This record gives sequence, C-alpha cells and structure tokens, in this order.
Amino acid sequence: MKPEFETILPDEIEKRSFEIITEELGGRQFSPLEEPVIKRCIHTSADFDYADNLCFSENAVSLALSALKNGCDIVTDTQMAKAGINKKKLAEFGGTVSCYMADEDVAMLAKQEGTTRACISMRKAASLCRRQTIFAVGNAPTALVELYRLIEQGKTMPALIIGVPVGFVNVVQAKELIMSAPAPYIVARGRKGGSNIAAAIVNALLYQLA
Amino acid sequence: MKPEFETILPDEIEKRSFEIITEELGGRQFSPLEEPVIKRCIHTSADFDYADNLCFSENAVSLALSALKNGCDIVTDTQMAKAGINKKKLAEFGGTVSCYMADEDVAMLAKQEGTTRACISMRKAASLCRRQTIFAVGNAPTALVELYRLIEQGKTMPALIIGVPVGFVNVVQAKELIMSAPAPYIVARGRKGGSNIAAAIVNALLYQLA
Repeated sequence: MKPEFETILPDEIEKRSFEIITEELGGRQFSPLEEPVIKRCIHTSADFDYADNLCFSENAVSLALSALKNGCDIVTDTQMAKAGINKKKLAEFGGTVSCYMADEDVAMLAKQEGTTRACISMRKAASLCRRQTIFAVGNAPTALVELYRLIEQGKTMPALIIGVPVGFVNVVQAKELIMSAPAPYIVARGRKGGSNIAAAIVNALLYQLA
Repeated sequence: MKPEFETILPDEIEKRSFEIITEELGGRQFSPLEEPVIKRCIHTSADFDYADNLCFSENAVSLALSALKNGCDIVTDTQMAKAGINKKKLAEFGGTVSCYMADEDVAMLAKQEGTTRACISMRKAASLCRRQTIFAVGNAPTALVELYRLIEQGKTMPALIIGVPVGFVNVVQAKELIMSAPAPYIVARGRKGGSNIAAAIVNALLYQLA
C-alpha cells in the first residue's frame, strides 16, 4: 500500500511545518524575539532538543536585528553554512557572507602554527572586517576559542556570535567559554549544532526583518 | 572559572570523535560497510537517533561504492548539500556534483506546474544525466516523490538514492514511498535528516574508497 500524502501547496509547507512544531511544543512559552529562532532550528533538524539547548545573551536577538538592518556582514566557518544563508534577503539590507576556510593563506598559516584553519580564518575575518560582523560558527570549536581571544585582545567586537559547532571534542567547553565573553551570543549548549543550524539561525533573524 | 579543554592536534579531532561515538554506542554491532555511514551521521549531528533510523536496502553501500569508484555523478536537492560534499575526493574518481535548484528554467517550470523546484530539478537531472547517478536528497520530500515516478516510468535508474529530507509535512511518507522503489537506497526513516546528513552520507561512502 502506498503511503498517503497530505495535499498541500508548496508555499504552504513551511507554514504548516511551523504549526506542527508549535502544536508539539505544547504550551511552552518563549520570548517573542527568540521564538522564531528556536522554531527554525527545530524546523531544520526535526530535533526538539533545540527548544532546550539554545541560550541567548540579553537582547541578543534585538541587537542582531539592528545590526542586520544596518547592513552588517556575516562570517561563517564552513562553506555549507554560507550556502545555507539566504544571501538574497541579506543583500536587501546591504550585508554579505564570507567564509575564509578554503583560502590558501589560511591553510598555509594553520599548518605553520599547528592549529586549525577555522582558528586562522577567524583571525583573518577580524583583520579584514571594517564593519559590524556576525560570526556564525557551526562546525569548529577552535573558531569560538579564537574569537574569545580576539575579543579579549580588542581585535574584534562581533555584533553577534552564533556559537553552534557540533561534536564530541572540546565543543561543549568552547561554547561555555564564548558565553563568558563580553559579546552578544546565541549558543546551542552541549554537543549539538551544525552548519545547518548556524544558517537556520541567521535566516530566522533575517526573516524577522520586515 | 574557564572550562578545561582537551589538548589535541587538529588532525586527531575526528579520530577521537569517532572513538567517543563508538564508546557511547556501547557494544552495538552494525554491518561493517554500513557502520561508517551511521557513525558519520552521528558525528555530523551529535544525534544518536541515526543509529536507529538509518535504513539500507540490500547491498546499498557496496553498490554505491562500485558506482563511485567508476566515476558516478551526484545530484543534490540543495546548494548546502553540494557545499558539504568532499568534491576533491569525488573528483579523484571522476565524479562531479550538480544541484539544479537555483536554475531559472527550474523555477519557471515549477511555477507553471504549481509544484516545487525540487521536483522539477529531479526531472532535469534525470533528463541530463547520461551516466550513473547518486541522488542525495536532504531537504525536499517532493524530490523523492518525483524520483519514485521517474523510476516507475523508466526515466532514471539511480545508482543510489540517499533519502534524508528533514521535516514535518509529507517527509515520513516520501521516505516510505522511495523505500518501495526498485532502486538501492539509504534512508533516514522518520522526520530527521537534512542537507548536512545527505552530505555526511556521501562523504562516508567516499572515505571508504581507498
């Protein structure tokens, strides 16, 4: 027997998905600005853990929305996160997305220093960015550790840090560290996250702008 | 107090991660060819559900490995999955990755027919591909439904279908449908999946090739 499909127009699928997510979250209340971020992470992963593990610093979303409205740029730690971000929407406000992970100078310097390309790519971002920047980290805990150092040294002041690397080694620690930095953050506490989650958070912010 | 980090070289992080995954899976046994696929999905999501929800048709992995070794191409339903696939490794065997989702003719035809771009992009892939193809679907259930139709009509015969769209509307049904098609598959049963999972499965296959 063939499975039965719900008859639904393409444009309606996302709306219906968010309705199902809301239903299954029961009566849970979230802050109105944080709610679309939480729900889009669940939408992108079908994983309700994001209702519990996402941590927001005070006013993180409203600060990020102001920055995006003013054309702030985004730096990611993977090409995948870059690919997943709605660049058309971002461009409406004047923003662009960069990822320096595949740059030859980044690879060379990482090898010389015995560190990760993610770490060096954050350093490159801090040295290049002359405008407000949102750092969206979905893969490399070392990117968060380097961002922490760069902030401490006064070399960058992110408009927002999206700290959602996924994994088993130093991921939990890197997230705790970045939450102690004096910068706005959205962090998925624990092991979970990913480039898809990083992109989903950026898009959830963009879709809140008129 | 600052969190304590494990001292580890960049090259060792992935190995250590897989050791942790193996430890936490306890004594669970998997088929030797399927095990690296399952573990890489867990590695990419930190979600152990993939130890239970991944379904493989008979000999799916060995058939896919032969195809990849012979230079088979890959078609994805998102730019994100395309971005996440190790294209350098794939190219060593002669394969390429394509995604037709952003093509203007695909958008136009989808609008005309009142269907999704994912559906039309699968049709385009089937009409263009003259070689063996692996379809990696991490987002759109309608892509799987269209693939099912194309196989029924004899218009494509995939070397493998990676059926891991994520979501809440028609996703579960589309996965059940594709598992009834006469084609090799790797499917994440249920709601979970994503472009990251689709890319992880392709990479897990590639890394099994010498």
